[in-house]
Amino acid sequence: MTGNIAAVREALDHLDIDDNPATLKQKSRDFFWYSPVLKEKMDHLIGDFVVSPRSEEEVIEVLKTCFAHDVPVTTRGAGTGNYGQAMPLAGGVVMHMKNMTKVKEIHPGRVIVEPGKVVKDLDAETRAHSGQEQRMMPSTYGTATIGGFIAGGSGGIGSVRWGALRDLGNILRLRVVTMEAEPRILEFTGEDLARVSHAYGTNGIITEIEMPLAPAYDWVEFALGFDDFMQAAQFGYDLAQQDGILVKLITPIEAPIPFKFFKRFSGHVREDQSILIVLVAPHSLDGFTAFMGRNNDPDVIYRSDASTFERTPGHLAEYTWNHTTLRALQVDPTVTYLQVRYGGPDPLAKVAKVRETFGAEVLQHLEAMREGGNVIYAGLPIVDYSDEARLNEIIAIHEELGCMIFNPHRYTLEEGGRQKTDDRQLKFKQEADPKGLLNPGKMISWDDPNWSYDTMYAYPKMKQAS
Amino acid sequence: MTGNIAAVREALDHLDIDDNPATLKQKSRDFFWYSPVLKEKMDHLIGDFVVSPRSEEEVIEVLKTCFAHDVPVTTRGAGTGNYGQAMPLAGGVVMHMKNMTKVKEIHPGRVIVEPGKVVKDLDAETRAHSGQEQRMMPSTYGTATIGGFIAGGSGGIGSVRWGALRDLGNILRLRVVTMEAEPRILEFTGEDLARVSHAYGTNGIITEIEMPLAPAYDWVEFALGFDDFMQAAQFGYDLAQQDGILVKLITPIEAPIPFKFFKRFSGHVREDQSILIVLVAPHSLDGFTAFMGRNNDPDVIYRSDASTFERTPGHLAEYTWNHTTLRALQVDPTVTYLQVRYGGPDPLAKVAKVRETFGAEVLQHLEAMREGGNVIYAGLPIVDYSDEARLNEIIAIHEELGCMIFNPHRYTLEEGGRQKTDDRQLKFKQEADPKGLLNPGKMISWDDPNWSYDTMYAYPKMKQAS
Ligand SMILES: Cc1cc2nc3c(=O)[nH]c(=O)nc-3n(C[C@H](O)[C@H](O)[C@H](O)COP(=O)(O)OP(=O)(O)OC[C@H]3O[C@@H](n4cnc5c(N)ncnc54)[C@H](O)[C@@H]3O)c2cc1C
Ligand SMILES: Cc1cc2nc3c(=O)[nH]c(=O)nc-3n(C[C@H](O)[C@H](O)[C@H](O)COP(=O)(O)OP(=O)(O)OC[C@H]3O[C@@H](n4cnc5c(N)ncnc54)[C@H](O)[C@@H]3O)c2cc1C
Repeated sequence: MTGNIAAVREALDHLDIDDNPATLKQKSRDFFWYSPVLKEKMDHLIGDFVVSPRSEEEVIEVLKTCFAHDVPVTTRGAGTGNYGQAMPLAGGVVMHMKNMTKVKEIHPGRVIVEPGKVVKDLDAETRAHSGQEQRMMPSTYGTATIGGFIAGGSGGIGSVRWGALRDLGNILRLRVVTMEAEPRILEFTGEDLARVSHAYGTNGIITEIEMPLAPAYDWVEFALGFDDFMQAAQFGYDLAQQDGILVKLITPIEAPIPFKFFKRFSGHVREDQSILIVLVAPHSLDGFTAFMGRNNDPDVIYRSDASTFERTPGHLAEYTWNHTTLRALQVDPTVTYLQVRYGGPDPLAKVAKVRETFGAEVLQHLEAMREGGNVIYAGLPIVDYSDEARLNEIIAIHEELGCMIFNPHRYTLEEGGRQKTDDRQLKFKQEADPKGLLNPGKMISWDDPNWSYDTMYAYPKMKQAS
Repeated sequence: MTGNIAAVREALDHLDIDDNPATLKQKSRDFFWYSPVLKEKMDHLIGDFVVSPRSEEEVIEVLKTCFAHDVPVTTRGAGTGNYGQAMPLAGGVVMHMKNMTKVKEIHPGRVIVEPGKVVKDLDAETRAHSGQEQRMMPSTYGTATIGGFIAGGSGGIGSVRWGALRDLGNILRLRVVTMEAEPRILEFTGEDLARVSHAYGTNGIITEIEMPLAPAYDWVEFALGFDDFMQAAQFGYDLAQQDGILVKLITPIEAPIPFKFFKRFSGHVREDQSILIVLVAPHSLDGFTAFMGRNNDPDVIYRSDASTFERTPGHLAEYTWNHTTLRALQVDPTVTYLQVRYGGPDPLAKVAKVRETFGAEVLQHLEAMREGGNVIYAGLPIVDYSDEARLNEIIAIHEELGCMIFNPHRYTLEEGGRQKTDDRQLKFKQEADPKGLLNPGKMISWDDPNWSYDTMYAYPKMKQAS
């Protein structure tokens, strides 16, 4: 399906091109290998060359040229996505956004930026400008781009206050280029944002982003120790409901995850100790201390403003969200993970049931977040992997227990999401990518509208291993 | 009980004193007249003279001198309290804080200020300094002091996001002077704040305040029109649960309140139209517009950034909280009001039951706020007043329907609150005001520990009408 790649390569020769085999291989991969299932299926994938446009005009030129020659375009931010999101299933051009990093405007409550900006660098600029930062960010903020977050992410550090990226108000405006003979430039706000956000770049390329900002504080980082995981989970749940205590992150992690996988915590955390990571605004410290007093004063294992660690553990945010999994995989490559949503009025009851059912096979790691005004827990448990069949069984049991699963062992939008067509995204793809050249193979409803979701989808045009 | 007032007057002569009868009378009153019950009982009350200390040292001097001569001290901010909070029941000195208005420090997320600072002026300084403002404020922000808010208020504009003043984190630190032979200076944070906040100045005088700050935006003010009040209430409730849409105020007001009592709305609102007042951050406007689209696009009667009113209605915040009542009283002095808490998981069901029960006798005015992490409604309904007996009956019926009442027709802390002793406040009074000279008659548990709350408390030493 890679069309006339040679013609495209020649036509784009004056752009920033990379076809060095080593970088090409590297830029064709993301964190798909987190999943043993995807690792097996996608390890061989590689694009034909990498182009890094420096401007919207160059994006348009790439799209127009590829359209003319039927060449697929898979856009890449930093490639920290987990599900092969940025991997060229059918080969073709990898369009890397690394050169589009301009911060265009900063105002009270909002920033306008190009998509290739790394989140951490963006935060540094808005902080220096006016003490502002992103409302929420992935734990990969150190390397991930803001465009990749919007096109591939869902929420993260800050979601305990602001909910998910998809919630109204959490993205302000997106400027999008279409994949047509004459690419159009569109501006989306409000409801229309849902057409392209979290669409994996399958139906348009984001060239400019307007994001809301929150005040940036010198967040104080805590790791608290608990003898019982459910105490940690309850403490975090109650803390998230304290309207006057400003926090940015609440993460309960079950023993022995910290002891086994968090090397810098060695000597500070017991094998049977669960921990709770919290980021608190400095002016909420007194309130937080009072709250701890009301809740049996848990052990303070670490606090960033008064550390007793011989070596700094680094930012605790980088132990949360999918970084918990990363740290586990670095120590034990045989484990894997899931993405769970413990919603409803009593998320803790669901967590308790899951723990009863699986014991140490599924170790809990929760993230407090807001959903429809309520505090819920997202879960990214560490799973003791035996085989694909058991993994699917574990997923099915979660669903039976009333916990929603976003399957991270799938490379399509639908299977990683709510297992159904997103009409807004599909309709926009019909309009904006009529040849189906943008990140092909990621939207089942485009390729196979009648797919039943009984088994894992296998994109028929996926590039063969050579 | 006024002790040796002449000796005190003489000893304090070098301070800023006012004993002009007209100002003395004015400075001895607050908004007690809102209540027909209190109007009848308190109209005659007057202090002996007014002293306005310029510093903490002068506060200490006033307290020490009055202690020596057994003279009561009733502290006054701006006198906008509603329950005779700042009225000298037993005469004595009225200590007016108007000269203590210094802003001492402003930092990211917090400000240190003297108690006599008017909230609006405080906001102007923190806004000019670093784009920050108070998390919450009473609708009297234009005249009320920050010290009076802490000692007498409970929450207001901003509580939809931050909860109530009493919630951990919403006051950071209070510096307090005691009423003893040698007044002590104490600093309270965390749990200890509850000793003196909302204690009506009965157990210590606040001389310095540290408050948390939130980012200040150019809030856009909306009045939306609804044919059915419950639609307005539902819309507001759902809006408050939108985690990504930043609002500062959500106020549903039942028809015909706006038509009858909001003069500047004349010609813009129909008699049968209920309204919803909303303050939205500018960068949340697109999200808010999308939310309106999802909810039948209510009529926009007014928006501050595109007004079609011939005369500006002024700030819509000044139609909310107890300003709704004020506007009603200005048109129809025979009405009165209540303070209701529609808490629990389904506040709207409670509102509906109350409306069914009372019809037009109790017109609804709600304020969305956070309580324990959940959105609830506070109510300040406009009550068609017949007599005290019926008013008490209306209160009793509310309580039977599961709605908590904070009775605004009482002048004691307990009767206006949860009808029970606050041990922390009482114990601190025993320590800090051993002679019971601070704002006497306002704390029942001090005067009469065995009081049963069956009938309205009548302070036995209340100054007689002359
Ligand atoms: C350790 C770890 C922790 C993580 N934590 C989180 C987390 O907390 N929250 C979270 O949401 N995710 C998380 N992720 C996933 C991922 O890191 C984030 O979603 C990140 O924001 C992706 O950014 P990126 O620049 O790496 O995007 P990439 O991986 O390069 O791309 C992601 C998707 O966006 C598309 N895309 C990129 N740029 C554009 C553009 N300009 N226009 C259109 N489409 C585009 C790509 O084609 C791809 O489909 C984590 C991943 C890892 C490995
Ligand atoms: C129209 C209207 C609307 C209102 N809206 C609200 C609202 O939205 N939210 C709300 O909470 N309240 C509201 N109120 C009540 C009142 O306006 C506020 O609580 C206001 O903050 C009180 O401030 P003040 O300076 O007027 O205090 P005052 O009325 O002067 O005093 C209030 C109490 O505090 C004590 N006090 C004052 N200063 C000190 C000090 N330095 N140390 C110790 N004690 C002290 C006084 O003795 C008194 O008991 C409203 C009242 C009216 C009339």
